[in-house]
Amino acid sequence: MKTRAAIAWKAGEPLSIAEVDLEGPRAGEVLVEIKATGICHTDYYTLSGADPEGIFPAILGHEGAGIVLETGPGVTSVKPDDHVIPLYTPECRQCKFCLSRKTNLCQSIRSTQGRGLMPDGTSRFSLDGKPLFHYMGTSTFSNYIVVPEIALAKIREDAPFDKACYIGCGVTTGVGAVVFSAKVEAGTNVVVFGLGGIGLNVIQGAKMVGADKIIGIDINPGRVEIAKKFGMTHFVNPNEVGNIVDHIVQLTDGGADFSFECVGSVQLMRQALECTHKGWGQSFIIGVAAAGQEISTRPFQLVTGRQWKGSAFGGARGRTDVPKIVDWYMDGKINIDDLITHTLPLERINEGFELMKSGQSIRSVVLY
Amino acid sequence: MKTRAAIAWKAGEPLSIAEVDLEGPRAGEVLVEIKATGICHTDYYTLSGADPEGIFPAILGHEGAGIVLETGPGVTSVKPDDHVIPLYTPECRQCKFCLSRKTNLCQSIRSTQGRGLMPDGTSRFSLDGKPLFHYMGTSTFSNYIVVPEIALAKIREDAPFDKACYIGCGVTTGVGAVVFSAKVEAGTNVVVFGLGGIGLNVIQGAKMVGADKIIGIDINPGRVEIAKKFGMTHFVNPNEVGNIVDHIVQLTDGGADFSFECVGSVQLMRQALECTHKGWGQSFIIGVAAAGQEISTRPFQLVTGRQWKGSAFGGARGRTDVPKIVDWYMDGKINIDDLITHTLPLERINEGFELMKSGQSIRSVVLY
Repeated sequence: MKTRAAIAWKAGEPLSIAEVDLEGPRAGEVLVEIKATGICHTDYYTLSGADPEGIFPAILGHEGAGIVLETGPGVTSVKPDDHVIPLYTPECRQCKFCLSRKTNLCQSIRSTQGRGLMPDGTSRFSLDGKPLFHYMGTSTFSNYIVVPEIALAKIREDAPFDKACYIGCGVTTGVGAVVFSAKVEAGTNVVVFGLGGIGLNVIQGAKMVGADKIIGIDINPGRVEIAKKFGMTHFVNPNEVGNIVDHIVQLTDGGADFSFECVGSVQLMRQALECTHKGWGQSFIIGVAAAGQEISTRPFQLVTGRQWKGSAFGGARGRTDVPKIVDWYMDGKINIDDLITHTLPLERINEGFELMKSGQSIRSVVLY
Repeated sequence: MKTRAAIAWKAGEPLSIAEVDLEGPRAGEVLVEIKATGICHTDYYTLSGADPEGIFPAILGHEGAGIVLETGPGVTSVKPDDHVIPLYTPECRQCKFCLSRKTNLCQSIRSTQGRGLMPDGTSRFSLDGKPLFHYMGTSTFSNYIVVPEIALAKIREDAPFDKACYIGCGVTTGVGAVVFSAKVEAGTNVVVFGLGGIGLNVIQGAKMVGADKIIGIDINPGRVEIAKKFGMTHFVNPNEVGNIVDHIVQLTDGGADFSFECVGSVQLMRQALECTHKGWGQSFIIGVAAAGQEISTRPFQLVTGRQWKGSAFGGARGRTDVPKIVDWYMDGKINIDDLITHTLPLERINEGFELMKSGQSIRSVVLY
């Protein structure tokens, strides 16, 4: 079949809209009609050429929602007309990682996904007979996609696609880091470095679970209003205080119980660790640092009880936890609507990238 | 009263044995007759002058066991003739840290202890009318000491002092890191960097809780025999393999579930983190690095699920957990006898330091 898609031909160039060929689902695979997709920094990171693992030509996009159209042989967990969110972190429930009960990082199709291919080592996308690579196992910048069954979360049918798609990455990454990775407890103090989309989702996650102080850190005061709406209780602009670590330690009477780095700066990652409370503070790295950069601190920080951890896809198991987050949205426990600042048709997807780069959008969503 | 003690007059010099004056216990304090004390690397670290917080003249020693002789006003938790282990990490059960249930690092007398003083800001030791400083709140290189009530673990009376004293630091630091800090589970794989006294205690802790592979790392093959006796299942000499991290990852089919750095090398701390399993590996820093040194790694190590933590005094709450470890020793669940390689009278304490520095002893114990 044919599908409209935005193709990334090479790094550093805008996407091109075209009709591409999509082969139907093979065994264990599912054909999905994508109804909406967010534009995430990770798409931009790859498109810019900064991602050392970027592969071209590819169809980017990894934050979508849609409807199952057709299932390949052996598929049992979804059926046509099911509403789904594609998962760049799948959940096979059979690999060592899934069975460990200690991580959400299913590795069953990791190697082929990293090479832009389906699990059988081939691509379903092509143009003029030449294959185009898949991206993060999802490629939601295409109106129709084929994905493995284990990479689909089945969600409730009353959830609107243009909001639910954001749960495919940003919402889950932020809210999940609080709920699944950190298991933040009610009454604790939380510090959030960076008030972009991830940071705002961390904030609303912290509010949802009953955190006490929720301190937002950003050099951009333009995000204060929405951050407060999402639950931020204190704002600190690092440019307006002397030592940011000392400032947070004082504000929290000894240090934060939990901190989250949502920027990708190794300097902020260190500050985020060191501003946590002696004895039990936990700091989570969510942001993606530039290739080759390293974090550092004095080991005394850890010996005296601080813990340095990370979170990927919010620690959420895709098929198990993503539907829960959709429920939380539909129940009004989390707010997505105010984070979707722009919606665009596929033809204007490059405008969405520009809005993100300039800081004018929190999240732009492409509607098919 | 008078007490025989080993005085550290200044950094870099041998200890001097002398009779010093000891004032009796004030409110909340206890007079203890020390029967035995281990000589620990931390004593040497301070005596050498490398410890930036070292204070002189002082009476060092922090790994003792003895008998209560007299209690000051208000003391209720111990009475004369009780057998006790002095605690450099006290347990007041009333401070924010004790009440958090998340750390063993009681801070109630931290500031005075760090300045070599009793909680009221004075010293009980003096010579010729001039005060001598306490050390780590214990000063077990004195035959008699005065310590706060909250810094005494009451232990069973059938435990021999010359073995129980080692539980005052080294045994608890190693066994406790496994049991209390890491909560190592049966069937997991454990890697131990450094087969000194701490490393051997980590090994026997891992064996006690049913770990599967227990891999010891050391450049000194001289420790292989005793490490195997204590539970080591695999030995790796870093000088005999190419990349130690890759080697451990292969040996453990993906990485260790838990690793422990027992040396104090920031290079080994990094290796210890990076050899743990993606998704859930936890690495604990126990060793004390030289002042100013820093650990570093790529944040990706944490984002993909490894956790970097530390352990001080094995995560043990002194009054609560130290008596348990004495029980474990008396029940034959842990072996202390084979770790006490030398016993000396106080007059030969400097020989004990020499034995430690040269690597000839695992633990030397001074008997009064």
